[in-house]
Amino acid sequence: MIVAISRIRITSGNADAVAEQYRQRSRLVEQVPGFPGVEILRGHDQPDEFLVFMRWADCACFEAYRRSSSFKEAHHSIRSIPGQVRIDPASYEVGVFDVLGE
Amino acid sequence: MIVAISRIRITSGNADAVAEQYRQRSRLVEQVPGFPGVEILRGHDQPDEFLVFMRWADCACFEAYRRSSSFKEAHHSIRSIPGQVRIDPASYEVGVFDVLGE
Repeated sequence: MIVAISRIRITSGNADAVAEQYRQRSRLVEQVPGFPGVEILRGHDQPDEFLVFMRWADCACFEAYRRSSSFKEAHHSIRSIPGQVRIDPASYEVGVFDVLGE
Repeated sequence: MIVAISRIRITSGNADAVAEQYRQRSRLVEQVPGFPGVEILRGHDQPDEFLVFMRWADCACFEAYRRSSSFKEAHHSIRSIPGQVRIDPASYEVGVFDVLGE
């Protein structure tokens, strides 16, 4: 199993609406094969910061997801948020990790 | 529930030994009250990078752990690793997150 973590920081002040969008998005991705789970984390003292913590069977499953229509739909749906959503480009990061010990 | 994530990058070339130390450390912290679980993650393409992903009942439990003898013991045990362990100080980061959706 691998863990893919993506991180963003919202600079447009509408992080609550983004949080709601993330809740809906997590339900979409759950239908993708090889996808064991997602957790959406929001900064406790920095509520503009989000981590999406995804568990995948392997890197191939994760790469297939990034090419899938589910991925595109999830990211397009951000446009339905009222007002513009701006993300600090310097905050954007995607990391892939192996689970060492549980 | 909250998630506390700490991140380090090893610069001394002995990340395999640090990985082994982390495996032992995860067992120590499991005995601390209010501690629902830990995952140790290691960078898939950056094996010198580690994330410690800890789930706590609340911030108070996490703060109590950081003041505890278990925390001190876990961090002192890094000295038992053969050779010196150096960490990139710029890489060190601790974040506390709320779980938004699962």
